[in-house]
Amino acid sequence: MESISASDVLFWVNNTWMLVAAFLVFVMHLGFAALEAGSTRAKNTVNILFKNVCVLAIGLLTYGLVGFNLMYPGEVFEGAFFGFSGFGLATDAAGVTAAYADGQYTYWTDFLFQAMFAATAATIVSGAVAERVRLSAFLLFSTVYVSTVYPIVGFWHWGSGWLAAAGFHDFAGSTIVHSVGGWAALLAAWWIGPRLGAFEGEGFRGHSAPLAAIGVLLLWFGWYGFNGGSVLSADPAAVSFVAVTTTLAAASGVLVAALGSWAFGGQPDLSLALNGALAGLVAVTAGADVLSPAAAVLVGAVGGALLLGSTHAMARVRIDDPVGAVPVHLVCGIWGTVAVGLLVSEVSLVTQVLGVVAVGGFCVAASSVLLWGLDVSLGMRVGADEESGGLDVHEHGAEAYGIPPFAEQPLAVAAAK
Amino acid sequence: MESISASDVLFWVNNTWMLVAAFLVFVMHLGFAALEAGSTRAKNTVNILFKNVCVLAIGLLTYGLVGFNLMYPGEVFEGAFFGFSGFGLATDAAGVTAAYADGQYTYWTDFLFQAMFAATAATIVSGAVAERVRLSAFLLFSTVYVSTVYPIVGFWHWGSGWLAAAGFHDFAGSTIVHSVGGWAALLAAWWIGPRLGAFEGEGFRGHSAPLAAIGVLLLWFGWYGFNGGSVLSADPAAVSFVAVTTTLAAASGVLVAALGSWAFGGQPDLSLALNGALAGLVAVTAGADVLSPAAAVLVGAVGGALLLGSTHAMARVRIDDPVGAVPVHLVCGIWGTVAVGLLVSEVSLVTQVLGVVAVGGFCVAASSVLLWGLDVSLGMRVGADEESGGLDVHEHGAEAYGIPPFAEQPLAVAAAK
Amino acid sequence: MESISASDVLFWVNNTWMLVAAFLVFVMHLGFAALEAGSTRAKNTVNILFKNVCVLAIGLLTYGLVGFNLMYPGEVFEGAFFGFSGFGLATDAAGVTAAYADGQYTYWTDFLFQAMFAATAATIVSGAVAERVRLSAFLLFSTVYVSTVYPIVGFWHWGSGWLAAAGFHDFAGSTIVHSVGGWAALLAAWWIGPRLGAFEGEGFRGHSAPLAAIGVLLLWFGWYGFNGGSVLSADPAAVSFVAVTTTLAAASGVLVAALGSWAFGGQPDLSLALNGALAGLVAVTAGADVLSPAAAVLVGAVGGALLLGSTHAMARVRIDDPVGAVPVHLVCGIWGTVAVGLLVSEVSLVTQVLGVVAVGGFCVAASSVLLWGLDVSLGMRVGADEESGGLDVHEHGAEAYGIPPFAEQPLAVAAAK
Repeated sequence: MESISASDVLFWVNNTWMLVAAFLVFVMHLGFAALEAGSTRAKNTVNILFKNVCVLAIGLLTYGLVGFNLMYPGEVFEGAFFGFSGFGLATDAAGVTAAYADGQYTYWTDFLFQAMFAATAATIVSGAVAERVRLSAFLLFSTVYVSTVYPIVGFWHWGSGWLAAAGFHDFAGSTIVHSVGGWAALLAAWWIGPRLGAFEGEGFRGHSAPLAAIGVLLLWFGWYGFNGGSVLSADPAAVSFVAVTTTLAAASGVLVAALGSWAFGGQPDLSLALNGALAGLVAVTAGADVLSPAAAVLVGAVGGALLLGSTHAMARVRIDDPVGAVPVHLVCGIWGTVAVGLLVSEVSLVTQVLGVVAVGGFCVAASSVLLWGLDVSLGMRVGADEESGGLDVHEHGAEAYGIPPFAEQPLAVAAAK
Repeated sequence: MESISASDVLFWVNNTWMLVAAFLVFVMHLGFAALEAGSTRAKNTVNILFKNVCVLAIGLLTYGLVGFNLMYPGEVFEGAFFGFSGFGLATDAAGVTAAYADGQYTYWTDFLFQAMFAATAATIVSGAVAERVRLSAFLLFSTVYVSTVYPIVGFWHWGSGWLAAAGFHDFAGSTIVHSVGGWAALLAAWWIGPRLGAFEGEGFRGHSAPLAAIGVLLLWFGWYGFNGGSVLSADPAAVSFVAVTTTLAAASGVLVAALGSWAFGGQPDLSLALNGALAGLVAVTAGADVLSPAAAVLVGAVGGALLLGSTHAMARVRIDDPVGAVPVHLVCGIWGTVAVGLLVSEVSLVTQVLGVVAVGGFCVAASSVLLWGLDVSLGMRVGADEESGGLDVHEHGAEAYGIPPFAEQPLAVAAAK
Repeated sequence: MESISASDVLFWVNNTWMLVAAFLVFVMHLGFAALEAGSTRAKNTVNILFKNVCVLAIGLLTYGLVGFNLMYPGEVFEGAFFGFSGFGLATDAAGVTAAYADGQYTYWTDFLFQAMFAATAATIVSGAVAERVRLSAFLLFSTVYVSTVYPIVGFWHWGSGWLAAAGFHDFAGSTIVHSVGGWAALLAAWWIGPRLGAFEGEGFRGHSAPLAAIGVLLLWFGWYGFNGGSVLSADPAAVSFVAVTTTLAAASGVLVAALGSWAFGGQPDLSLALNGALAGLVAVTAGADVLSPAAAVLVGAVGGALLLGSTHAMARVRIDDPVGAVPVHLVCGIWGTVAVGLLVSEVSLVTQVLGVVAVGGFCVAASSVLLWGLDVSLGMRVGADEESGGLDVHEHGAEAYGIPPFAEQPLAVAAAK
């Protein structure tokens, strides 16, 4: 083995951790797919899985084609609000040396970690419009949102645009990732309207509690890469601290949502307990690096409480969000960002609010244009017959399950043709 | 990049591995939840998932509040049997330097890895009392057990208490983790009695074989962190050796249980084959660092055989343990600990037996007091109506599944109200 | 902490990454089990899970006993076509020093990573013969295939046999792993014939789309270890580049299969979209280290197209392959290997074709002998009654699911006895 310096070895360590973090963020896509499928009715399961797998593929490919170069344009065509360094991935050999990112990772690791992030923003929208969105329209919405809206906002903060210059603090993306998805989720869920029957009688429940639980725990697992990787190196102090604050906020989110649903709803609610974990995780994401452990517990707990309140509020205003994407990603994303301004003396509350509002304004504007354009062209929503019969049979000609004794009988899909 | 010494880089390597190991142990909680849910009836699935998610949250938070400071009290108030260094997590900046643990990990990594372990001990109990335990009583039992009983026993061995001084060898916790959970599982399953109808006719089967299989394979995956992380550094020789002995024991546990069930039961039994993997894993955990590969195969194989025998014996004495927690965690935990004394010349068999007995005595005593107290106050067991109707409908007002054509019909939960 | 050189620390880094890669490859076995179970009928689910867990255990143990020493015999008894260094694992202390593999990994890590690979080859066959193969015959087939055929072919290329000498380029095993499994899958599926009714009417669909989707996304996750670990060190440039080409090929495979099924089949097909990911992954495996990102997208896209064509072709020639193992692992394995010859100027197309043909010839010959021997002795296929009634009830005396209201009724298994 040839001679190597300690600094060079550190490059190997950092890069290996950042790759592992990227793989963990990949797992979040499985988590989102499982949670969304489990939280909705069985007749739309094939559609949901198809959507999620395609959004992942689209997100990764478009981020390579344009997103990465919009978000991290380097010195080319760069202003405070927008930059772009051209189409496609670089093949410059300099990208694989320690000099590329001060010994933290290679160009390829950088791209992969960021690409895994990008695809999550579109996936957040998927859950809010589940069970009635038109597949083609949703895929086009996702393609544009993940390839342009997300990276432009990302550039503002992480690409050294105007939010970075203003001192905005959003460690791993409570605002820059989660609220970007959350605003589009809110707009889209409101735009296309509730599922037929969503606010009648008992309403709908998800068709598989285990699938939802698997989804949430895999998301929690993946969050160690999402937040831990956002340190951008394997720095022992920083990564381990972030992993602890992330863990504590998730745990307190679970407890507050679980006990709160018990106290106020009369019965302990699994779905809210699970979303409580995500509420805590989204909330702590902005300040995982600077909140004390006690503050992380508090931020997660308030996240759990806000989840309960905003889930109730969404039902009151009759916006139908089958998986609770808006309470989790938008409400807790905003809370987490504001909490850093409230709890950390070095961070300006005003700047935090400014960032939340600016990102919100841009995302609402962009989503509105997109939704309007797709609605008048393709139509954002399927017909009532398709919705009643289920998207699986009508859009995919398939059913998700064949449980005995049904597997031996003619499938409903055959009858529906 | 500033200059750094090779020793400092080693600290980064060790800490990164220990964090990854902690994340892998986290996955075990998903594994436990999936295995327990899949091994029981569909009508109690929501309850089981709720229990497991809450126990994880409770375990993590209480370990931060008291457990970690009971298990690793440092030099404060420390005797041979008990120590305590106060409530809550330290915020001493010294915890993040290499000096904290001789370059192996930071204070935060230390806490996180140990906290993920702690929560497993309570989860083991969960499976044994599934389908008839009262939710509130179980959660209180878990809170006390994981925050006091587990860390006190842990202190005896890993916190440099009297078992460490006596030369007891339990590498990653066949006794200190698995039998601690296993003793409480045995006591609690016996105390609250079998499920209604458990020993009549065919008995009960789990409601989802895939969910159980996912659970076991995720537990196996997580065990690489459980055992591999117990090296407490990334030492190549030690971690890779432990990973191999762990793997071989799991594989031989599967084969013996699978072929044994075929030979003695007449048909190859999936449930026993899956538990065979866990039997091998629990058994090898005490000696994964010192057993030769051949000895690891032997220890796993005997674990698989003991699983078959003790599963049969539990049915004979009519103790109802829906997931086989006692055969897996208690019987194989004891076997693995004793096996080190039998197979490794440097380890005293007498000390191993002494450790098993002492831990057993303490856990049985503590569990008895807890179970008695909770039974006379809250009641450990739900009523017969609730049990027959299912805990999901009665305790949670929800059903785990909505499979067509049922999803379109009034749910049983509505009828039950 | 004692003094250590930077080279020594590099050994710790490399070994840690290789262990993590081995654990990721382990996850692929869960992925295969979930995909195969989800893609077949519910009445054979217990059988499929049992098969997959046992094949994993058999693969790991036999690789320790003979496979590793056939594949990497070192200087003992070594020729161009065959080598063997004796039974069982070494216990030579030299295996844990940096000198063992030039600072890349220990002997134990080497064994573990390779053993996890070996078991995948047999698992590929499992899917193609699902729902009608006799359990005992399949387990014996797997035992022989994974312990002799796979490691002998592996020796030709990775054990420095004749294919290595000829300049064959197969980075992580499009041919050496996937087509080795794929040839046996093709032979075995043809030999035992289609499932009863497989080509009548609508044909069969899998019984759980979520289980299949979980399987594919876990396989994709595990592939980061399969391809990333095949770098055999944590070299930042190489591992991150391989992770990116792997990702891009998987994503383009998804898109081409998803859009292709929509365009040519009239409806977007989830099953083909999922297999599109695997098609891209298998195809890029041979050249993940040398293909440019654009070439990786192309190789994955062509893989997706070949998946569609060969899935159609298999149905035309009436070879019944329930999970699409042949299109994914054989067709795309061959394509990926040939693609390196077509797209990378340093690699000879002739040598690539030669390697594909030689491996194919050997695997077809070995599989034929094995299938013939097992068919005349045990019988490769179950009886028609067992197949109609389901392998779960007939071979295992168990059912995979108990969904209400069935869970409270006498199970079909009781009736079948």
